[in-house]
Amino acid sequence: MGMPAGVKTDRNYPIPEKMKAWVLGDPGELRLAEKPVPVPKRAEVLVRIDAVAICATDLEIIYHGPPAQIEGGQPFNKNFTPGHEYMGTVVALGPGVDEYKIGERVTVEIHAGCGQCKRCRQGMYTSCHNYGKNYGDVDKGHRANGFTTDGGFCEYQVNNINTLIHVDDTMSDEEATLVVTAGTAMYGLTELGGLVAGESVVVTGPGPIGLLGVAVAKALGAQPVILTGTRDNRLEMGKKLGADHVVNVRNEDPVEAVKRLNGGIGVDYVLECSAAANAINEACQMVNRGGKVCLAAFPGEPPQVDVAHLVRNNIYVYGIRGEGKSATHRAEAFMRQKRFDATLIHTHTFEMDDLKEAIRYAKDRVEDAIKVVVKNPHSEARRVAAE
Amino acid sequence: MGMPAGVKTDRNYPIPEKMKAWVLGDPGELRLAEKPVPVPKRAEVLVRIDAVAICATDLEIIYHGPPAQIEGGQPFNKNFTPGHEYMGTVVALGPGVDEYKIGERVTVEIHAGCGQCKRCRQGMYTSCHNYGKNYGDVDKGHRANGFTTDGGFCEYQVNNINTLIHVDDTMSDEEATLVVTAGTAMYGLTELGGLVAGESVVVTGPGPIGLLGVAVAKALGAQPVILTGTRDNRLEMGKKLGADHVVNVRNEDPVEAVKRLNGGIGVDYVLECSAAANAINEACQMVNRGGKVCLAAFPGEPPQVDVAHLVRNNIYVYGIRGEGKSATHRAEAFMRQKRFDATLIHTHTFEMDDLKEAIRYAKDRVEDAIKVVVKNPHSEARRVAAE
Amino acid sequence: MGMPAGVKTDRNYPIPEKMKAWVLGDPGELRLAEKPVPVPKRAEVLVRIDAVAICATDLEIIYHGPPAQIEGGQPFNKNFTPGHEYMGTVVALGPGVDEYKIGERVTVEIHAGCGQCKRCRQGMYTSCHNYGKNYGDVDKGHRANGFTTDGGFCEYQVNNINTLIHVDDTMSDEEATLVVTAGTAMYGLTELGGLVAGESVVVTGPGPIGLLGVAVAKALGAQPVILTGTRDNRLEMGKKLGADHVVNVRNEDPVEAVKRLNGGIGVDYVLECSAAANAINEACQMVNRGGKVCLAAFPGEPPQVDVAHLVRNNIYVYGIRGEGKSATHRAEAFMRQKRFDATLIHTHTFEMDDLKEAIRYAKDRVEDAIKVVVKNPHSEARRVAAE
Amino acid sequence: MGMPAGVKTDRNYPIPEKMKAWVLGDPGELRLAEKPVPVPKRAEVLVRIDAVAICATDLEIIYHGPPAQIEGGQPFNKNFTPGHEYMGTVVALGPGVDEYKIGERVTVEIHAGCGQCKRCRQGMYTSCHNYGKNYGDVDKGHRANGFTTDGGFCEYQVNNINTLIHVDDTMSDEEATLVVTAGTAMYGLTELGGLVAGESVVVTGPGPIGLLGVAVAKALGAQPVILTGTRDNRLEMGKKLGADHVVNVRNEDPVEAVKRLNGGIGVDYVLECSAAANAINEACQMVNRGGKVCLAAFPGEPPQVDVAHLVRNNIYVYGIRGEGKSATHRAEAFMRQKRFDATLIHTHTFEMDDLKEAIRYAKDRVEDAIKVVVKNPHSEARRVAAE
Repeated sequence: MGMPAGVKTDRNYPIPEKMKAWVLGDPGELRLAEKPVPVPKRAEVLVRIDAVAICATDLEIIYHGPPAQIEGGQPFNKNFTPGHEYMGTVVALGPGVDEYKIGERVTVEIHAGCGQCKRCRQGMYTSCHNYGKNYGDVDKGHRANGFTTDGGFCEYQVNNINTLIHVDDTMSDEEATLVVTAGTAMYGLTELGGLVAGESVVVTGPGPIGLLGVAVAKALGAQPVILTGTRDNRLEMGKKLGADHVVNVRNEDPVEAVKRLNGGIGVDYVLECSAAANAINEACQMVNRGGKVCLAAFPGEPPQVDVAHLVRNNIYVYGIRGEGKSATHRAEAFMRQKRFDATLIHTHTFEMDDLKEAIRYAKDRVEDAIKVVVKNPHSEARRVAAE
Repeated sequence: MGMPAGVKTDRNYPIPEKMKAWVLGDPGELRLAEKPVPVPKRAEVLVRIDAVAICATDLEIIYHGPPAQIEGGQPFNKNFTPGHEYMGTVVALGPGVDEYKIGERVTVEIHAGCGQCKRCRQGMYTSCHNYGKNYGDVDKGHRANGFTTDGGFCEYQVNNINTLIHVDDTMSDEEATLVVTAGTAMYGLTELGGLVAGESVVVTGPGPIGLLGVAVAKALGAQPVILTGTRDNRLEMGKKLGADHVVNVRNEDPVEAVKRLNGGIGVDYVLECSAAANAINEACQMVNRGGKVCLAAFPGEPPQVDVAHLVRNNIYVYGIRGEGKSATHRAEAFMRQKRFDATLIHTHTFEMDDLKEAIRYAKDRVEDAIKVVVKNPHSEARRVAAE
Repeated sequence: MGMPAGVKTDRNYPIPEKMKAWVLGDPGELRLAEKPVPVPKRAEVLVRIDAVAICATDLEIIYHGPPAQIEGGQPFNKNFTPGHEYMGTVVALGPGVDEYKIGERVTVEIHAGCGQCKRCRQGMYTSCHNYGKNYGDVDKGHRANGFTTDGGFCEYQVNNINTLIHVDDTMSDEEATLVVTAGTAMYGLTELGGLVAGESVVVTGPGPIGLLGVAVAKALGAQPVILTGTRDNRLEMGKKLGADHVVNVRNEDPVEAVKRLNGGIGVDYVLECSAAANAINEACQMVNRGGKVCLAAFPGEPPQVDVAHLVRNNIYVYGIRGEGKSATHRAEAFMRQKRFDATLIHTHTFEMDDLKEAIRYAKDRVEDAIKVVVKNPHSEARRVAAE
Repeated sequence: MGMPAGVKTDRNYPIPEKMKAWVLGDPGELRLAEKPVPVPKRAEVLVRIDAVAICATDLEIIYHGPPAQIEGGQPFNKNFTPGHEYMGTVVALGPGVDEYKIGERVTVEIHAGCGQCKRCRQGMYTSCHNYGKNYGDVDKGHRANGFTTDGGFCEYQVNNINTLIHVDDTMSDEEATLVVTAGTAMYGLTELGGLVAGESVVVTGPGPIGLLGVAVAKALGAQPVILTGTRDNRLEMGKKLGADHVVNVRNEDPVEAVKRLNGGIGVDYVLECSAAANAINEACQMVNRGGKVCLAAFPGEPPQVDVAHLVRNNIYVYGIRGEGKSATHRAEAFMRQKRFDATLIHTHTFEMDDLKEAIRYAKDRVEDAIKVVVKNPHSEARRVAAE
């Protein structure tokens, strides 16, 4: 019970002083270590981690360092705990917090903006101008779980209440880890205008964000929703999640196929999730005049882009990172209302202690893995005990 | 030098432990008292008050209690220090603050939202859902200078950096106190759509917000800008601030006059600042189909409203309080660029010790007072000493 | 076959020169007359009327004259054919029209804006500044079916293609007449922001627009959706259409009930469809700070409105008329996707010849009528013949 | 007087049956021909051309064919009359037109959308989905002066009233031809958000749109406004039009210079007008996280684009063509109000008969030509005669 005065705890949710946490070593190396259980401050809670989904970005961080470091050129960050698609149970409340209760199940989004910069003041907290500044003299309060602050591959983590989403009793732990993925797709569709009922939408790339992008677009009423990709089994899954049409780009030209499927003039919106080299050009060819393209992925090498086509056709392109504008809450609402079954993309579960094996499944797509989830084995037992 | 560790100070800006502060007694009663100089926390600075303008709302608070109390039915708040239109000099930085420098001149807007509620997360911090919760167990961090926390009729005040606006050297202390007034008008025009160049705008009521509403609308390119009111000298001042036409409602029907001055069909936008009983109805008659009305004022008694007219003509009505969406920064930019001379509405200056007399001028419009400013007599001498 | 050169027709859809049409006589009087079948011009089609729903506004027009007349003080319009919630089959195409095909089933929205005024250029065609100008020297091309131009209580009507919505084969004629009602609710929710997934919405008044407002809000993901009204059977229908909670205002205070049902702080949005005298005040009390209210109805007499509350709480009020911003297309998409069963509100069907009896049912709510539809008895036979 | 019944004319503005018109021959070839004076239809007027500015796009059309042809692969369009930046005097009104008067001076924007497609219905008429369809059976009413329909290098031209902007008496013919250029810059700034007062803006490329982009950004209150380019004399002109800083990219790295000039973190908005190969990448490096880039120009060859940077930093890119959303009206308002002197960029004037020489000046930048204007020599004499 190491929590200081001002932090609210509950005897049914005992908190140890130390915890097990996976930490980074050299690139590609993960090892189990012991860390102190962190302490929630003002506007923060302590979350007991119950389940974490593995995201492609986690693999980037594990093998190449956190994005801030990649971008900023800093050295590889040893002892850092990655993992950002996690959910769990609130076990302690920072000073003054009454928005959440101890024992409440929550899932989290990544970014807690600083709250003071221009972008945060505009509600654009994923573009916080104090990104990564959360240490020592330059602590501006920005946090990005598993990116710039310790993440969820451990037993406990603190979270700003701005990052929390209540999890309904009807939702399993595994499903709850997928809210942030659906939230990213929702953010993309939000920036494209949001009012997509009856509008035509293409989603390119049937990865997790793409597949849930199909589901969210359909939940919002888009029609037709067209999914493009290279693997038929993924495209089939897209159909189950709401795609009206699927296009295997190995079999036909996706631009021609999209135009054929939408009356010859291209669609209103493209949500690009494939990271393919030519994806941005194909997306711009797929939309009609005045259409909009959201880039939720990017290729490893800078592609040649037909800027002339983009300008001549009044096309707008939105690069997004993360899940801003409270999009996770809108995504969670659709999931709670069972508008689509996000668990279709959850394929494998491991115990937290087996994280390395879980990562191998995710990285190498073993058994065609899509979303691999690691769980804290004691979470459910402890929940029963608490109730 | 009572500032704790973590707060940055500067020997050129010595800070006493105690200060003089005007405080509320019984309704209508103000007296000078001694208070401790407040201490800036994270994301806050300490401002030495150099000048404060008196606003009609200050009079409300002094004679009837702060709005939160009026609305919430709480007892009259003795020992509270009102005053919200103030500017001054940064003399201490809370832990981690580097956005502002000691010695920098700043003016302030009123609202620092909590940063955690739904509205703050949307960038609508003036509608913070934790309004007034800044004490004890329910300290959510919301602050509204001179409304829910101590204001500027004193020597020093803490301010969240979200409320600060840098003051350019070319701007006098008196002019700087008017930024928040121009910012309120700018907020209203922002909510009406913001892109008013070439659009027709009526401002009703030539009080301080109305007069600067004329100035801001003109700076944004509106044409025509029409000002309505009852006093010719105020209307003349409106002309100097950019009104293309003025209408004395004592001499002609304002709705007919507006239609005559704008081609017969009414204007696109009305910014209502008069608080007249029938103002909302006249505003709705003044706009054309699909027009928009911003209410920056309200009458004491609920008026009868022609709701049918509003619905039939697709009119939108925006009630605003304060100066949200960083509108003060946009207003300050125009003032810094000398697009209009806000000091035209500054009519009288008193020393801070003469606050009661200053308030009498403001309240009774002595010598046709518009904006009455009280100044700290030592501010300028101290600035010279610091430089 | 009286169509002039340039108009495309099809032998399977023969068009007579004359048709039966219901026309207005003295107030409250309707009689069957003969009129020439109208001719579609550029950007218009001729629609064979298959079904028409009766709206409360039709009753206003029949008993008190078209709104333009009520507002403009013109004499009661004899020989005018009312009816605006109609659907049918395209039987002739004006010059150059290829967006629709002969034989295609369509339903219609009311307003075809002039296309030249400021509002039309902004996409706000329901607020067209040339409203009603469609005759002689002042023909600006504005049309409002059944309001300013002849409507659907007849056999054939011309429609600008801007007003058409394709009707899917899976939708019955009766259901198709309800698209415009759902579209009005969709327009209201669009103007409130549109992104209502996970947001709290109150709909006041379980008339046709209110009931479909519940359905559309739920389809968009709102939660909770709360419906208030006075009749339990209507409230029960609201539950079937998606209301999470219903409040009978005869049994409890609706403002208190709404706050209780939504965590104590009021909801984000209110869609007011009751036309009750105090509805606007209750709506403003139901929303939280920064909340928004859409008025889709209005009381007969101007109510007293608590403008101070609206201003102090940064509340925005949107008066809407009709179904702008292509909202009908979004509504139709949800209906085609079977997100809700609009036919629940369709209670009675009559033949077109029995219009007077149909109107009696609608006006007097005989057998608790909600939506009463009149059908052209030969439509289906003719469709079969054409296929 | 060849105008048919229904068209309104005035004896003070006599209209011949034939006129002189410059027409395209082989690529690069222009010759004077005789054409019938066109006849205004519904919602159209006949404009007597008084002055035309030459735009770089005119040169494209003259040497390579109209854009629709370049894009659509159609043959080079002989007998087509180019020229789109024109102004003149209304001399005849199509049936029903009363929005403009005979004798009124007007300047024109390029695009009259069809009014029926999805984009026109949204107010995005420059992205009309019936672009170029204005002939024979597929006449959808779309017109783009000098692009898809005959333009202004002649004596008379018809124009949809949607494309007209009233010209104030205080504005010369030459200045009036520049409204559309300022309008393009205004459209770009509109799509970037429009509320740029106090925000930092970079304009890249001091061509006509870039220079007036500086002027419009400053008029809207942006600060700082930074202009980048390669020629010092153009940059100096940028200063006169409102640039706070200029950067000669031959002397310093523009990205570093912009960051240095704006506090180290890049600006909020970039308006790219240079068409340089790497401009899009530099623009994306110049903006801060969450910043926005408008592309009003494009390079001849598709550049490599750092899409990863764009996505990681939540950057939005807006390709624009033309001057939509009534931006010309906002630009004209600022010009009428003398907020900036657009005539600074007007360098040369020729008579219409000397169009070839005028084009040589524009094309080869003879005497550092920026905007070259051709005038109808009789316009002013005729205006005097008419008055």
